[in-house]
Amino acid sequence: MAGRSERKVLALSGGVGGAKLALGLAQELAPQALAVLVNTGDDFRHHGLHISPDIDTLLYTLSGRSNREQGWGLEGESWQVREALSALGVDTWFQLGDRDMATHLLRTGLLDEGQLLSAVTHRLASAMGIATTILPMAEEAVSTVVHTDEGDLPFQHYFVRRRCEPAVSGFSFRGLERARPPAPLQQLLASGAVATVVICPSNPFVSIDPILGVPGLWQQIAALQVPVLAVSPIVGGRAVKGPAAKMMAELGLPVDAAAVVRHYRQRYPGLVTHFVLDREDADLAETLRSGADDHIVVHDTLMQSLDDKRRLAQSVLQEARW
Amino acid sequence: MAGRSERKVLALSGGVGGAKLALGLAQELAPQALAVLVNTGDDFRHHGLHISPDIDTLLYTLSGRSNREQGWGLEGESWQVREALSALGVDTWFQLGDRDMATHLLRTGLLDEGQLLSAVTHRLASAMGIATTILPMAEEAVSTVVHTDEGDLPFQHYFVRRRCEPAVSGFSFRGLERARPPAPLQQLLASGAVATVVICPSNPFVSIDPILGVPGLWQQIAALQVPVLAVSPIVGGRAVKGPAAKMMAELGLPVDAAAVVRHYRQRYPGLVTHFVLDREDADLAETLRSGADDHIVVHDTLMQSLDDKRRLAQSVLQEARW
Repeated sequence: MAGRSERKVLALSGGVGGAKLALGLAQELAPQALAVLVNTGDDFRHHGLHISPDIDTLLYTLSGRSNREQGWGLEGESWQVREALSALGVDTWFQLGDRDMATHLLRTGLLDEGQLLSAVTHRLASAMGIATTILPMAEEAVSTVVHTDEGDLPFQHYFVRRRCEPAVSGFSFRGLERARPPAPLQQLLASGAVATVVICPSNPFVSIDPILGVPGLWQQIAALQVPVLAVSPIVGGRAVKGPAAKMMAELGLPVDAAAVVRHYRQRYPGLVTHFVLDREDADLAETLRSGADDHIVVHDTLMQSLDDKRRLAQSVLQEARW
Repeated sequence: MAGRSERKVLALSGGVGGAKLALGLAQELAPQALAVLVNTGDDFRHHGLHISPDIDTLLYTLSGRSNREQGWGLEGESWQVREALSALGVDTWFQLGDRDMATHLLRTGLLDEGQLLSAVTHRLASAMGIATTILPMAEEAVSTVVHTDEGDLPFQHYFVRRRCEPAVSGFSFRGLERARPPAPLQQLLASGAVATVVICPSNPFVSIDPILGVPGLWQQIAALQVPVLAVSPIVGGRAVKGPAAKMMAELGLPVDAAAVVRHYRQRYPGLVTHFVLDREDADLAETLRSGADDHIVVHDTLMQSLDDKRRLAQSVLQEARW
């Protein structure tokens, strides 16, 4: 096992909700003690550019440049390109800010040169002054497809273009069966340095499932025999952010944190050692504990201020006896 | 043969110099009476975007939006994306303006959808309110390679990144042997409507040769049996714009309009019916006439103002008995 100074937390994250806790962890830990494994099922090509929305959210959040009010993109963004696209009659449903565009251009150019997404992500993180490791879940393209009453929709079309309005009946992840954990992730997992795994409060179905669906990955994480803590993104029967609650209702699931716990327990048996629910859901915790091997703990999980984020990170690390 | 009202001028053009005469022709003729066939050997992928510098110059010139002072790009351009790229540590040797970027994004997105470059160019021209037909010389990718004392350089690396400094020993056009005239060009040539062909004062080696090098094209133009007028880009032993004169010196050619005439005569025997030289080169015209089947005519060929462009267009059309 690695010495205490080399121990690392591996956090699994989708976009905004997960990035909040990742930021809290990055601030509580030495930045090098954190690695964030990020969903790339939302990635897509748009106007020829390779866009990785969740990686970008991590990059912008951890570099302190995210637009917190808007919930996506960069603070102080300008929109010259978008205006010029509109003037050319283009439907600019996916909003490309000028500074955001630079991220996509650099990424796409490097990928076109044959670099791997993990190397490109490392280059972007370095350029933004981020010491935390940000890893894509796979080098290969994986595409989340949302099955809806309007047919199968690529994730960004469902999420941005159709504003999550179509009713969801399920998901598939094209290319996931051929995906492999990136070499830096394999090295990290083999190093013995990962002492805690945190599943951030991201959407279980379209953010965490694609990551844990990389063939062999969740079993490899379970085999580490370290605390694996999952923070529920559902609080008091509502999704803190995004369409998770709406999806659960459409999938016929109860819309509460207990359904999240059951989803993870059924899909990845034995993986999660601690489920972190909000204090508001303390009553659910009680019933979930009955006969279970895992721990159900309650904390304040809503993260608005930076202090909130650090406090939840502290709570999670304490539960893991970090 | 087409009736007078359907007659068309087909102009062959590279970038800035050619676009000036194309603009003059567009203003002298009904816009629909002009089709411009444009070099795409300069096209390249940059940061994942498909950039067609000469087509863009035509689009921006004919839509009245070109930055005339700068000689490239758009008037009133902003540079937010370039600044953001620089902040990410990217060498921004090819300057991508924000509004220019929208052109590349739209083009790349449509090409990625499987549309042909001619259709994409038509869409861009329509979006910019251009009634003149702008045609790429080929749908397929053709890449001009400049052989220099620093090795083989892709055209934009030679032209922009190395500012034409390396000494040139020759050119090749990758992919040209497999290129085919786009369907709209084939239809135009087969229609009987092309009554005059104008070879604009563009660089003979890297703008006009790639166009006329599309297999079968120059012979097809010659077979039209219509006036084909070539305007010399060399005036008084200097290139009006760009590296043509420097290239000629490095290739061991005399740097004068006579060498341009000989280049076209040798490479495309019988194609050009009228060579248009500047008045300054009237003495060269005299010697070039001896024993030749083609006509050597002199006019004012320098185009600074819009009036200059229209006057040269008038002169060319008069020589063609339009």
